[in-house]
Amino acid sequence: MITVPADDRGLLLGDGLFETILAEAGRLRDWSEHMGRLHRGCAVLGLEPPGAAAAERAAAAALEAQGLERSRAAVRLTLTAGSGRGLDRPASAAPRLLASAFPAPAPQGPVRLKIVSVRRNDTSPAARLKTLSYLDNVLARRQALLEGADEALMLNTRGELACAAAGNLFWIAEDRLYTPALECGVLDGIMRARVMAAAEAIGTPAIEVRTGESALETVQAAFLTNSLIGLRPAVEIEGRSLGQHRLVEEVSRRCT
Amino acid sequence: MITVPADDRGLLLGDGLFETILAEAGRLRDWSEHMGRLHRGCAVLGLEPPGAAAAERAAAAALEAQGLERSRAAVRLTLTAGSGRGLDRPASAAPRLLASAFPAPAPQGPVRLKIVSVRRNDTSPAARLKTLSYLDNVLARRQALLEGADEALMLNTRGELACAAAGNLFWIAEDRLYTPALECGVLDGIMRARVMAAAEAIGTPAIEVRTGESALETVQAAFLTNSLIGLRPAVEIEGRSLGQHRLVEEVSRRCT
Repeated sequence: MITVPADDRGLLLGDGLFETILAEAGRLRDWSEHMGRLHRGCAVLGLEPPGAAAAERAAAAALEAQGLERSRAAVRLTLTAGSGRGLDRPASAAPRLLASAFPAPAPQGPVRLKIVSVRRNDTSPAARLKTLSYLDNVLARRQALLEGADEALMLNTRGELACAAAGNLFWIAEDRLYTPALECGVLDGIMRARVMAAAEAIGTPAIEVRTGESALETVQAAFLTNSLIGLRPAVEIEGRSLGQHRLVEEVSRRCT
Repeated sequence: MITVPADDRGLLLGDGLFETILAEAGRLRDWSEHMGRLHRGCAVLGLEPPGAAAAERAAAAALEAQGLERSRAAVRLTLTAGSGRGLDRPASAAPRLLASAFPAPAPQGPVRLKIVSVRRNDTSPAARLKTLSYLDNVLARRQALLEGADEALMLNTRGELACAAAGNLFWIAEDRLYTPALECGVLDGIMRARVMAAAEAIGTPAIEVRTGESALETVQAAFLTNSLIGLRPAVEIEGRSLGQHRLVEEVSRRCT
């Protein structure tokens, strides 16, 4: 078992970043996009980014260690700010890169979404990154499950629709495709970008919006995206049943 | 060096809590208050709290390992949600308790405060707890330092005065003592409670308020509190110099 020193800032303060990457028979999907996002996150947090070759070796080694080189699997890269206690990083802190791999079976069925009380802190630069401070997402998911849903729908601090606890949100209303703008404090999702490119290609560009939950009243269909689940339809939001829509299928076909 | 498995949820997701406790010649100050807060945090996060005896043993062992049984030191207790990846905690996850100790020299000099853009997410139950998802505080402090101050002053998502990156805030205006209400999304600080009790005892009870930054315009004096620094005066907020006030000294004398 890989271990980290107990004075690691990822452990002590959630000071670091991660990426979760789909591996299909050893091929790391959207590798350069994931590395690009990790680098952008490092710039925001003020961390030295890992070298691409080292990261790739770590990912391959993690897959091999778990015997997952031929499976549908996930690789998680974790980059911590290194060792050092206290809010101020010591000058000596050197980022620590970890990789792990686990089976990632194809996603199962559609999800029921419920708006939770924990909001996405769009005032924090961390809101657009995958950081090691993910407790709000853990708490959001927990609340959704306790209330009988499968996944949390998070608003931001201004009450705008933001995202799920683990995924970006898209919806269709009046036959148009919508998604919260990045300024809402949502992750710059790699599958989100893929969906937007697919929608553009079929002549129905996704509209990035900043809107409150009243927008959900006219929703015809909705889905979540992330790198592991791909595109996953929602069957219910706030207890209201959603339908299917040809746009979801067309976009989905082009993304997978 | 103590290590933790790389699949620890504290490391992967910031899923856990901590306490930082002042140790004076081996005596753990406000031990029962710290344990009480840790237990309340566990209830919010849905974690099994550690036994008091085990926690005390861990703290004593950490002090001894560093040869700090006779010094002014700090003990940090870290309670993680145990091993397991993904937002949903596996049923098998058992919390992991860690303790470390380090020298804690008496606090130095007064601080200059600056309001930063990262806001305290008062919509999250985590805002009132010391959690392992502390990156917003790291980023807030970093911003304050980059802008030439010593510590960040954080507003909450409604623009109300909340707290410092590492401490509760008090100020004096019109010869009265004020502090943000817990509902502003601030930590239920143990030194905060001590200051409030001291102020009550001298007949000048602290007034818990929800107010915006305009309240700072009439501030005569201000100070921060936490378990390690005790009570630390601020000399400047947003570039405006602050004075001294007899209330600060009277309260301080009763708290130390």
